[in-house]
Amino acid sequence: MSYEPIDYLPYDFANRRHIGPSPEEMAAMFAELGVSDLSELIDQTVPANIRQKDGLDFGKPLSERELIHRMRAVASKNKVLTSLIGQGYHGTVTPPAIQRNILENPAWYTAYTPYQPEISQGRLEALLNFQTMVCDLTGLEVANASLLDEATACAEAMTMAQRVAGSKAKAFFVDENCHPQNIAVMKTRAEPLGIEVIVGAPGDLEADKVFGAIFQYPGTYGHLRDFTEEMAALHDAKAIGIVTADPMALCLLKEPGAMGADIAVGSTQRFGVPVGYGGPHAAYMACRDAYKRAMPGRIVGVSIDSHGNRAYRLSLQTREQHIRREKATSNVCTAQALLAVMAGFYAVFHGPKGLRAIAQRIHRKTVRLAKGLEAAGFKVEPEVYFDTITVDVGLLQRGVLQAAVREGVNLRRVGRTKVGISLDERTRPETIEAVWRAFGLLRKDEDFTPEYHLPEGLIRETEYLQHDVFHMNRAETEMMRYMRRLADRDLALDRAMIPLGSCTMKLNSAAEMMPVSWSEFSMIHPYVPKDQARGYAEMIGDLSSKLCDITGYDAFSMQPNSGAQGEYAGLLTIRDWQVARGQGHRNVCLIPVNAHGTNPASAQMVGWKVVAVKCDELGSIDLADFRAKAEKFSDDLAACMITYPSTHGVFEETVKEVCEITHEHGGQVYIDGANMNAMVGLSRPGDLGGDVSHLNLHKTFCIPHGGGGPGMGPIGVKAHLEPHLPGDPLNAKSAGPVSAAAFGSPSLLPISWAYILMMGGEGLTQATRVAILNANYIAKRLEGAYDVLYRGTKGRVAHECILDTRPFEKSAGITVEDIAKRLMDAGFHAPTMSWPVAGTLMVEPTESETKAELDRFCDAMLAIREEIRAIEDGKMDPQNNPLKNAPHTMEDLVRDWDRPYSREQGCFPPGAFRVDKYWPPVNRVDNVYGDRHLICTCPPMSDYAEAAE
Amino acid sequence: MSYEPIDYLPYDFANRRHIGPSPEEMAAMFAELGVSDLSELIDQTVPANIRQKDGLDFGKPLSERELIHRMRAVASKNKVLTSLIGQGYHGTVTPPAIQRNILENPAWYTAYTPYQPEISQGRLEALLNFQTMVCDLTGLEVANASLLDEATACAEAMTMAQRVAGSKAKAFFVDENCHPQNIAVMKTRAEPLGIEVIVGAPGDLEADKVFGAIFQYPGTYGHLRDFTEEMAALHDAKAIGIVTADPMALCLLKEPGAMGADIAVGSTQRFGVPVGYGGPHAAYMACRDAYKRAMPGRIVGVSIDSHGNRAYRLSLQTREQHIRREKATSNVCTAQALLAVMAGFYAVFHGPKGLRAIAQRIHRKTVRLAKGLEAAGFKVEPEVYFDTITVDVGLLQRGVLQAAVREGVNLRRVGRTKVGISLDERTRPETIEAVWRAFGLLRKDEDFTPEYHLPEGLIRETEYLQHDVFHMNRAETEMMRYMRRLADRDLALDRAMIPLGSCTMKLNSAAEMMPVSWSEFSMIHPYVPKDQARGYAEMIGDLSSKLCDITGYDAFSMQPNSGAQGEYAGLLTIRDWQVARGQGHRNVCLIPVNAHGTNPASAQMVGWKVVAVKCDELGSIDLADFRAKAEKFSDDLAACMITYPSTHGVFEETVKEVCEITHEHGGQVYIDGANMNAMVGLSRPGDLGGDVSHLNLHKTFCIPHGGGGPGMGPIGVKAHLEPHLPGDPLNAKSAGPVSAAAFGSPSLLPISWAYILMMGGEGLTQATRVAILNANYIAKRLEGAYDVLYRGTKGRVAHECILDTRPFEKSAGITVEDIAKRLMDAGFHAPTMSWPVAGTLMVEPTESETKAELDRFCDAMLAIREEIRAIEDGKMDPQNNPLKNAPHTMEDLVRDWDRPYSREQGCFPPGAFRVDKYWPPVNRVDNVYGDRHLICTCPPMSDYAEAAE
Repeated sequence: MSYEPIDYLPYDFANRRHIGPSPEEMAAMFAELGVSDLSELIDQTVPANIRQKDGLDFGKPLSERELIHRMRAVASKNKVLTSLIGQGYHGTVTPPAIQRNILENPAWYTAYTPYQPEISQGRLEALLNFQTMVCDLTGLEVANASLLDEATACAEAMTMAQRVAGSKAKAFFVDENCHPQNIAVMKTRAEPLGIEVIVGAPGDLEADKVFGAIFQYPGTYGHLRDFTEEMAALHDAKAIGIVTADPMALCLLKEPGAMGADIAVGSTQRFGVPVGYGGPHAAYMACRDAYKRAMPGRIVGVSIDSHGNRAYRLSLQTREQHIRREKATSNVCTAQALLAVMAGFYAVFHGPKGLRAIAQRIHRKTVRLAKGLEAAGFKVEPEVYFDTITVDVGLLQRGVLQAAVREGVNLRRVGRTKVGISLDERTRPETIEAVWRAFGLLRKDEDFTPEYHLPEGLIRETEYLQHDVFHMNRAETEMMRYMRRLADRDLALDRAMIPLGSCTMKLNSAAEMMPVSWSEFSMIHPYVPKDQARGYAEMIGDLSSKLCDITGYDAFSMQPNSGAQGEYAGLLTIRDWQVARGQGHRNVCLIPVNAHGTNPASAQMVGWKVVAVKCDELGSIDLADFRAKAEKFSDDLAACMITYPSTHGVFEETVKEVCEITHEHGGQVYIDGANMNAMVGLSRPGDLGGDVSHLNLHKTFCIPHGGGGPGMGPIGVKAHLEPHLPGDPLNAKSAGPVSAAAFGSPSLLPISWAYILMMGGEGLTQATRVAILNANYIAKRLEGAYDVLYRGTKGRVAHECILDTRPFEKSAGITVEDIAKRLMDAGFHAPTMSWPVAGTLMVEPTESETKAELDRFCDAMLAIREEIRAIEDGKMDPQNNPLKNAPHTMEDLVRDWDRPYSREQGCFPPGAFRVDKYWPPVNRVDNVYGDRHLICTCPPMSDYAEAAE
Repeated sequence: MSYEPIDYLPYDFANRRHIGPSPEEMAAMFAELGVSDLSELIDQTVPANIRQKDGLDFGKPLSERELIHRMRAVASKNKVLTSLIGQGYHGTVTPPAIQRNILENPAWYTAYTPYQPEISQGRLEALLNFQTMVCDLTGLEVANASLLDEATACAEAMTMAQRVAGSKAKAFFVDENCHPQNIAVMKTRAEPLGIEVIVGAPGDLEADKVFGAIFQYPGTYGHLRDFTEEMAALHDAKAIGIVTADPMALCLLKEPGAMGADIAVGSTQRFGVPVGYGGPHAAYMACRDAYKRAMPGRIVGVSIDSHGNRAYRLSLQTREQHIRREKATSNVCTAQALLAVMAGFYAVFHGPKGLRAIAQRIHRKTVRLAKGLEAAGFKVEPEVYFDTITVDVGLLQRGVLQAAVREGVNLRRVGRTKVGISLDERTRPETIEAVWRAFGLLRKDEDFTPEYHLPEGLIRETEYLQHDVFHMNRAETEMMRYMRRLADRDLALDRAMIPLGSCTMKLNSAAEMMPVSWSEFSMIHPYVPKDQARGYAEMIGDLSSKLCDITGYDAFSMQPNSGAQGEYAGLLTIRDWQVARGQGHRNVCLIPVNAHGTNPASAQMVGWKVVAVKCDELGSIDLADFRAKAEKFSDDLAACMITYPSTHGVFEETVKEVCEITHEHGGQVYIDGANMNAMVGLSRPGDLGGDVSHLNLHKTFCIPHGGGGPGMGPIGVKAHLEPHLPGDPLNAKSAGPVSAAAFGSPSLLPISWAYILMMGGEGLTQATRVAILNANYIAKRLEGAYDVLYRGTKGRVAHECILDTRPFEKSAGITVEDIAKRLMDAGFHAPTMSWPVAGTLMVEPTESETKAELDRFCDAMLAIREEIRAIEDGKMDPQNNPLKNAPHTMEDLVRDWDRPYSREQGCFPPGAFRVDKYWPPVNRVDNVYGDRHLICTCPPMSDYAEAAE
């Protein structure tokens, strides 16, 4: 595995395109680090006993052009039919301006989760629009900024109901009209938590026997029902009522809030987000104000900045799993931000009148379709419907479905005799006529007058989307400028390094992103017959096989939609295996304190007890403590969860022993793959002793972060666990599914596959080496200014390093937050703050960054250290200084400047671009104010003025 | 033609998407204007006698989705084969990052020509990179920022040679190895100018008989020849030597400058710009320093701003046609800026080593191909070649060509017995094998070792692309950020209104732009067999027919690549017709002074004398003067050229009389269609008496301006002129061609076609009405502050209005330039400055702008008027004031502020956004300095520092 530096590689070699430092820059970095080449550094960093023997060999890497060619060939094996299957997935029209300016714009898709609000105001506003839309449509008071998919949102609503219900009942009622995949995912979630799921018709609900109940609206076969009575009965029993509602239907129909629902969930997919063979799209959740602190997911709220100007931020963050750890009851940490932004903009583009018109049109078409069938004698169910009908065709089912396919239309197989049809905004008269032909009817669309066919008591009586943003001028010029203004407020990867430890913010290359927009990937319904998705099957097969080679596992499941969901799915897999071998009682999970933040929450979700294991002073697992606890809980040990290399940024030498000990005591080893970017090509978790790992494809494998989602967290397992992987959401044979679609968010998979194909085995390995080089270079350049908290035995860090900024609080009153905000003045997103060690910064540059950019960052950090020193030395005011006043804005520049340092010093610290300076649009955001005055929908200006008083 | 305002239209109605003011806004505008509705305003504005009788009827407008569906259907009728035809058009690979971040990014494509340098620094830098690339590759000292295509560049080089040659000979020598289309276009250009074109073999050149000579390198059939001797001979005769060179070949071969060439021209298409069935792509021109003032086109140069910081600008602008008018000898006013930017970035992405590697690879593949053919006994010409060979196949020609097509490959038909083959960077081993199969050979690519086969004396010995920008770190992360930084420096339509009179900067909607990237449009060679371009034929046919309906003409030619070229083509058509009817002596062209700026130069180009006609005090044609001059030149009257509505922004009531007078005296009427956005649906130039008009598809019909090109200037003619339209570039039957491809830049046509299909007849007419409404609203709001120079008889302006700012020079020492720069502080691109009337501003808002944006502009203009008043009243310093110091930059803010007004007042005048403020990256640019110290390639920092001293 020697590395021969190549003098020249044209740009279109992925391992030149993806790898930041040029050969000349690398030479300079080797000199700085005192190594002769990359091999020497890697030898010092990655312990010999964990190195993989053979290099990865995936053949010749593809050029961009070859990639597109290959991708086109695979895409052509997917057949794009018109899918009227419904079941939570619908045809939709993405406005081209949204496709171009959001989905395909790196300013949006390369952004990170908006934890640093000052440099995230654009997407925070867009997500606030989304929340406002959800609150308005559902008639509830508080909404979050999206969840993974409708099925997991149902499951989250169920566990949330258990948290907030007054009732202590252990059962949960599920409307039999819920989509099958929702029921399946709720059952999966319920089982380890000891929740009994009762599936039945709404009329069968016995409210006093349950802590909550969930109903689908419209029902999966099209039924419309007012759940007001059920809600009242539940409330009488101190139980929680949940409605899973289609937001398009809510444009015409009585909203869940008006029925008395406590929680509403659903999918906003049909608001302009292509189905994509199952994802990604944004689910939503809304609830009564009283329950907001129990709601999972992120909530965008309105606050003020240090000048008292309006500023957005994430509210109530203390609810989140990475802060609550063992206390968390949900491990949700990814949302579908980019897709929520798209859905929110879809509502902005159409406004309430437009949405209502779209919903009306869909409904009228459905009426027309039904009339045509009824006129021919077919029995159409239900009597009242919005967009979905079911037709009993008896023995003709197979024939009708096949005839429909020949007409280019997919219908839904319902039971053994029925066919389901859901129309959508893409449905044209020709589509309806094609459906009729599939039923043997030669009719013309215009033969039938469109009518309304909604039950009177369910007609919506309230207004929605009354806020100004939904009444913007809808000329595209104005929309385009609004999207650009929001994008410009944010700092994303397209402008600067985002050195977030553990988040692996690397290049999402344009060539990798392009296939995502192709209709052959984006317009496939997740439940199409398999022969229509052969391209997907080929890609998923090849990608899985390559991921197996990379990780040393034997099988992969693409189902988990996020890293945290991958953890959960991995633990479920272990649990299922333990049950299958008669060890179902095992319920202890050992988790070292240097493991990933979501791990404890995930363990909770499968009903396990978390036992924490200590770390030694080097930040590594305390092997003695680990052994002691494994022995103590030997009979009940289910698994251990470790992160490798550890979240302390170190390749621990004892990892194999940890695995062996776990296995000795009957446990399985879960190795968190969040740090896989430090391992690819050098070391394989499967070889170390891992039984399961999840990979964050949105970290190591180039799926963009999208401003806080989408993500993909597939899991790899050893052969013995393969039968226990998550099951098909519609047809689970053993283990239950964890999300609604068999392959999670498959329309993202071309990105990761393209990355691997264009890098090749050597390119991937080189990326890993350079990620390690870049981290060590930063550690070296900052030596003397900042202490690196943990290092390996030879003094090297892995692909990230923790800078200890805790001493400055004492020496100068400067917190890690002050440093993070000051970095904004230099045009940087801060490294990960206070995690995994409070008061520190964790820096992960990734291989994508050039030496020049690393130097710009180091210059900024060194200058900050000098500013701290000036305070320490009494040369600078401890309160009124560039750190405490950071970030500086144009607003500061234009106002009177009564500060003991110059405008120049304040606004243009070392590292900042001069002409191309990025300006945070707001000053430091007041977190306390925002949580005390929670506003999480777009406020009218008047309200806002009052709140600020 | 009554207009019924519709209460609600969803966004996806083009006449809602494209039309800025909402119905509510329009109502408020009617009130401001004192009209009850749009009809009343239009009746007051457009004279009854010029209104068209029937409204446009193009059937039901398409929605975005229907448009894409229709466009896909048409696209599928184009067959994408691998074209190895060569002849100036080659397969190329557009780096996806360039496609996404430049071609598909509104920040680049919606920008205007960089006449206002302070808000155009990004594209000026990108164009300077292009110029540097051209200078380096050609070995010449000065390059312009692109020309329309290679054939017109050859023609421009010919006329430039005539201007600068010492020789007074009237003939011009053309190498017979020039591409046929280049020869055809030069002949077209030469004929009216009385230049004799001598086509012959280079050896036949008689240097003392010509003022110049042009040679193709490599020759059209692949020949390589060193022209050093020819150049020397030409210089001895005081004649000019021109080489048309393929820039890819120049990466390996001796450059024209080293041969002694005075001028080099060529196409940069194969630098990452898809062939697009002929265009658009950027031609280049470079010359010796001594001739730079005679060079047509724009030249980007380096200057300094008022702080002495480096700033780019267009240099030597006094050469341009709109300033020289009658004295101009070229009417070039459009470049291919967007495509030049792409080609420049292609060089940045690859760097000199990458380009050399690509060129080497192409050459090696060609050697391999030739060896395979030679081994089978075929005779391959020439002996030495770069990428193009010709094979004599005798009677087999037809069979080989057809067999190739069956293999998916287009070869070139050469004479009656030969086949030409040009390879490119897309050529794969499979392609070469397919070609062999077409020749009946079953060989494997690997059977032949690749070798070099270049003549020793022609191997390039000089370095190129040594500037830093071509040695940037080529990681995509860095490239993406560089593109973003440049984009952010510029102000384009995606951030603010660009109210440029006569330029019609309207929405280029995303749906219209999307098909441009489809391979079915972008990857068709211009000379493919017709059955491979049926989709293009259908689109061009339908578009032409609709343009005929819109204009009242009978036929259209899509050939002209710009508005100015359209004028030229139109006059050529008239001239050809006059010749055909025995009136070839007619050579007088009447041009009123309110006609378009390029008109006189165009008339010069067809060898006509320009006779100017006066205007009355209302800005309209002085009918008496017109009649008098028509009578005076009755025998020689060839044509008149008028602009309608006039460039003074008025619908003249006498237009029909002007046409009648012209016809009476045997002349033809050319109506410049630049202002067609004020006419569509209301009035047709063909009905007014026009015989020919060009349309600027990049104005009225939504093709974006691309930062100064591409453009399209098709001409419509009455039936009698149809036989005289520009001929096919490869097979002209009567009139000669004006550009290299039969349909100009056809890959842009989907944009205009989509616009028309989505607007429908009523939508197009509504756009016209609202364009007029918007202009009148601005005129009304600015009443009292600025005088509107010209109005119609009822006090209304057309779609634009001229604000008289001349009085302020006297009253306050404030020039129109000061106002233009001050508008930048408010976040606006200035209106057209000093044209058509020196010292004034011409404002054209277009229908795309909302009332809110118009108000923002008016607020800014009114505040400027108050600032002028403060100077007039002695309340503000006449030198040190916000107008003279404009634009203000961040640099001003951060420096000490020693001005008699506040930072707030300076930087945030009314109209400026607060949080989303656009900051010009440089202060006011010093024009004089830039022209005195002309630098038009990227300067090394050291040179720059010296120059600034």
